[in-house]
Amino acid sequence: MDDVERLIALEDIKALMARRVRCIDEKDWAGFASCYAEDAESFSMSSAPGGKVVGNRQIADWLAKALSGITTVHQVHAPEIEFLADDTAKGIWPLNDILSWEKDGERRWMRAYGHYRQTLKKIAGRWVIKEHHLTRLLVEQGAEKLA
Amino acid sequence: MDDVERLIALEDIKALMARRVRCIDEKDWAGFASCYAEDAESFSMSSAPGGKVVGNRQIADWLAKALSGITTVHQVHAPEIEFLADDTAKGIWPLNDILSWEKDGERRWMRAYGHYRQTLKKIAGRWVIKEHHLTRLLVEQGAEKLA
Amino acid sequence: MDDVERLIALEDIKALMARRVRCIDEKDWAGFASCYAEDAESFSMSSAPGGKVVGNRQIADWLAKALSGITTVHQVHAPEIEFLADDTAKGIWPLNDILSWEKDGERRWMRAYGHYRQTLKKIAGRWVIKEHHLTRLLVEQGAEKLA
Repeated sequence: MDDVERLIALEDIKALMARRVRCIDEKDWAGFASCYAEDAESFSMSSAPGGKVVGNRQIADWLAKALSGITTVHQVHAPEIEFLADDTAKGIWPLNDILSWEKDGERRWMRAYGHYRQTLKKIAGRWVIKEHHLTRLLVEQGAEKLA
Repeated sequence: MDDVERLIALEDIKALMARRVRCIDEKDWAGFASCYAEDAESFSMSSAPGGKVVGNRQIADWLAKALSGITTVHQVHAPEIEFLADDTAKGIWPLNDILSWEKDGERRWMRAYGHYRQTLKKIAGRWVIKEHHLTRLLVEQGAEKLA
Repeated sequence: MDDVERLIALEDIKALMARRVRCIDEKDWAGFASCYAEDAESFSMSSAPGGKVVGNRQIADWLAKALSGITTVHQVHAPEIEFLADDTAKGIWPLNDILSWEKDGERRWMRAYGHYRQTLKKIAGRWVIKEHHLTRLLVEQGAEKLA
């Protein structure tokens, strides 16, 4: 990769991550699945067996079910991206997410802060996520009576 | 546009959005107005007639009045930007904003999360906002007694 | 600097800031110190004498002590960066940070929102922070009984 190709790859990867989190929050699970390699591995998924889900459609299905009925907000911030090869990159993304739902006459919420750590691959001309890990710095939660 | 021109346009648009939100939070309404085309249209402005304001100075005046006496924080995150022509782009920006004000011995606040959807134009060599829409994912509000 | 060199410098500076805040939150103080020039000046440090600390190791030591026992989250958002020379840039970074700690059976927290204003220098081929200022828009704080 020359300098310009690397700059383009950086922008493509940043836009990929922007699309990934927007698709979660808009519950566009087909769009979300298209952000991953077909054989992608997603770790740190607490309610999955072994904490790991394999396959882009499986990851999307798992998340769709986990977030059913929940309003979510995911935001990713300035990343650190390193290229290991022309078609391989490592990315660290600071993120925060909010989950908000109603139960027993309350609005309940969880806010989490941490980092995504990813391996990205360029497959058939498009950057996609090959491996996805989540580490957390802080989790806050609460509940408020609904009016 | 060649690759480098597109990369420069991307950076110009990102810096434009950074300036736009800083100008809101610093109540620099002349700086804010300069981020828009003279005939810009801003939608999703709930307290405006028809929810729409036309004209960069009118948009700035409207917002200055709406936010008078209110401390604000606006933050925009990793965007998706697509070029439709050398002088035209579409942008989707995740954002969150906080409004904080005092009333009746309380601090009251509102936190909102959503997306800006914009059309941007390059006019006289400078990218500006031509059309601005806001969609919301979540709104939180509360109040606390002042000490 | 030509256009491509400027674009690379922008990405280098963005990655520098991403690393700086990750190092704070992971309490990697050697990594944090490496983001600063040896003779860097950090202003707006409320508990330091005169509000100013000089020297990259001194800044790291000061912050390590100030944040000892505190969980932190720092997030930086879309910046405005301006080059004054091939080796000198000014940056404005919107940020929010959260401090969270336990005391007297409570979780106490502070959330602050504002801007970093920096002078950056390219020294020995690497961008580093030369001068660092913080201005605040809003500070929120609270406490909750631990379960």
